[in-house]
Amino acid sequence: TQHYRITLLSGDGIGPEIMAVAVDVLQVIGKQLDLTFAFQEALMGGAAIDAKGEPLPAETLELCKSSDAVLLAAIGGYKWDSLPRHLRPETGLLGLRAGLGLFANLRPAKILPQLVDASSLKREIVEGVDILVVRELTGGVYFGQPKGIFATETGEKRGVNTMAYTESEIDRIGRVGFETAQKRGKKLCSVDKANVLEVSQLWRDRITALAAEYPDVELSHMYVDNAAMQLVRYPKQFDTIVTSNLFGDILSDAAAMLTGSIGMLPSASLGASGPGVFEPVHGSAPDIAGQDKANPLAQILSAAMMLRYGLHQPTAADRLEQAVLTVLDQGKRTGDIMSDGMTLLGCRAMGDALIQAL
Amino acid sequence: TQHYRITLLSGDGIGPEIMAVAVDVLQVIGKQLDLTFAFQEALMGGAAIDAKGEPLPAETLELCKSSDAVLLAAIGGYKWDSLPRHLRPETGLLGLRAGLGLFANLRPAKILPQLVDASSLKREIVEGVDILVVRELTGGVYFGQPKGIFATETGEKRGVNTMAYTESEIDRIGRVGFETAQKRGKKLCSVDKANVLEVSQLWRDRITALAAEYPDVELSHMYVDNAAMQLVRYPKQFDTIVTSNLFGDILSDAAAMLTGSIGMLPSASLGASGPGVFEPVHGSAPDIAGQDKANPLAQILSAAMMLRYGLHQPTAADRLEQAVLTVLDQGKRTGDIMSDGMTLLGCRAMGDALIQAL
Ligand SMILES: CC(C)[C@H](C(=O)O)[C@@H](O)C(=O)O
Ligand SMILES: CC(C)[C@H](C(=O)O)[C@@H](O)C(=O)O
Repeated sequence: TQHYRITLLSGDGIGPEIMAVAVDVLQVIGKQLDLTFAFQEALMGGAAIDAKGEPLPAETLELCKSSDAVLLAAIGGYKWDSLPRHLRPETGLLGLRAGLGLFANLRPAKILPQLVDASSLKREIVEGVDILVVRELTGGVYFGQPKGIFATETGEKRGVNTMAYTESEIDRIGRVGFETAQKRGKKLCSVDKANVLEVSQLWRDRITALAAEYPDVELSHMYVDNAAMQLVRYPKQFDTIVTSNLFGDILSDAAAMLTGSIGMLPSASLGASGPGVFEPVHGSAPDIAGQDKANPLAQILSAAMMLRYGLHQPTAADRLEQAVLTVLDQGKRTGDIMSDGMTLLGCRAMGDALIQAL
Repeated sequence: TQHYRITLLSGDGIGPEIMAVAVDVLQVIGKQLDLTFAFQEALMGGAAIDAKGEPLPAETLELCKSSDAVLLAAIGGYKWDSLPRHLRPETGLLGLRAGLGLFANLRPAKILPQLVDASSLKREIVEGVDILVVRELTGGVYFGQPKGIFATETGEKRGVNTMAYTESEIDRIGRVGFETAQKRGKKLCSVDKANVLEVSQLWRDRITALAAEYPDVELSHMYVDNAAMQLVRYPKQFDTIVTSNLFGDILSDAAAMLTGSIGMLPSASLGASGPGVFEPVHGSAPDIAGQDKANPLAQILSAAMMLRYGLHQPTAADRLEQAVLTVLDQGKRTGDIMSDGMTLLGCRAMGDALIQAL
């Protein structure tokens, strides 16, 4: 028996509902494959602000550090949007990334054949799209110093952030990019703004140098503005994309929306060692919270990424992903992905269907 | 008779071909409306690098400053891509923007009914899309200091750029955003990343404060990652967007590509006073240069923006834009926008058709 300690950060809005489904499903797959999970709950985001006065209490970070993997649902909501920056749910998320050293964020945008028509793009453009964005997650303009709002000589305010990368930061995420591409279509597109930014010039130089170590991967470079265009124009040209924190934030969301069903998309955030964090791309959807309407499938697919990348249990991951495809093939849908002739299920019922499929 | 001095920067690739068409068309409309144009050619981009060893010679900038408006075609090409940064065509463009103080960049992304099917998005999603992106053009991470590649204490290199805005820079572009929205659908969406970046927090605070002066404009705020998503999901929700230099670079290109025909899109770059620069969104397309295959319509629509925003001749602008619609209604197309049943024309012939339509 393989034993794992999993920290659950259910967060806000629909978080607790979709997390409950993920836990049930993990228990079932654990029994099937002789894995046991010890789940420990911790507070983060709005829930932590309400209970403890801060979005990432020290004991939450400690619990995460001491576990084998962290499963996160969703954080945030209107309620906390006007608090000062250090008290916002997002600040907790940035603290978690920094605290666990999660420098590599993997964001798949894969069109499922069952849901092609959910896309706002034409079927022939999106059918078969399978992109993985590897986003740097602990550097760049998100964390660069100096930052703040300062007074200038003339007395007016100036807002400042610093977009910076060192060579070793670039190499570290670059390697994840190349290694991820090796396991996929062997095509890596590095996205930067090297025609304008020095930080991007260094990025491009290092990625180009690394390519010598990965002769089986076909490397290309693209400017970020062009990448945003090309994702819309002809997304099938992309296999794996590696890029900086801010560009990855924007492009992974654009890529996600090509699918038309962001209620289906998981993500993984990984460090050099220690536990990774696995979470859906969608938000906490406070408007439908507590109504058993949420789509738990991105949470399930996040649990699958946890099994694959965090716990190195590819068989369990495959089974979970297969179960998701099975319920879709059965025509089962939550409200966000509902279409004519399909069967509408609530969050819980979708979880039961998954367990059935397993 | 109204007399105007226009500096022509034909640049590289297809630049000279499409500029020649624009000049002919402007002469015709000038005769019709009693405007005379004195055109003066100047070197910029790759052409200037080849002839003068620098992408923006001082005499070019002087000539631009002394004119009523600058019409730019397209610059750049593979040939100059590996030169050091200060010798790249793009550096000339940044120098022109800074040198003329062109802080406001207007980038329309409008779907023409004749070309709806060119879009990679479904007809019902893009039909009627009419977005104007107001992009700040002389500040932010494009120009912020410090920037460069520096050695760290440990001896490794660190690439650094500074993303910064002062209150007055934000107010200046914010006003252009509100005033542009007033002349359009009266909806302004300000895009930032205020949940992470201090510079965006200051941006949001100032834009919010300005709103009091424009009670007829409905202001909303959106994070840049969400904006990239929403452009793909449901672009009709946008009317006017105001944003910073880098976000505007990315989002205006994504918005442009929604149309599927970037050979049709113009842009305007304006300062507080002095001449504006008017140019197509597309590049210099070196692969088809000199073959009479280029689409001159974005250049013509750029000339129309010059007439409207630079020379305050709305009647002339209207006529030019109408002529473009007329040739499209006649089924005339260049290769990039060709479809079944239409008549394929070269660059020159498209120019003749426009003159006919006028
Ligand atoms: C909530 C926010 C801080 C976060 C980010 O910008 O990284 C989110 O957009 C994401 O992509 O995970
Ligand atoms: C060529 C480049 C410097 C330029 C920019 O980034 O502003 C271009 O992408 C644009 O949008 O005009």
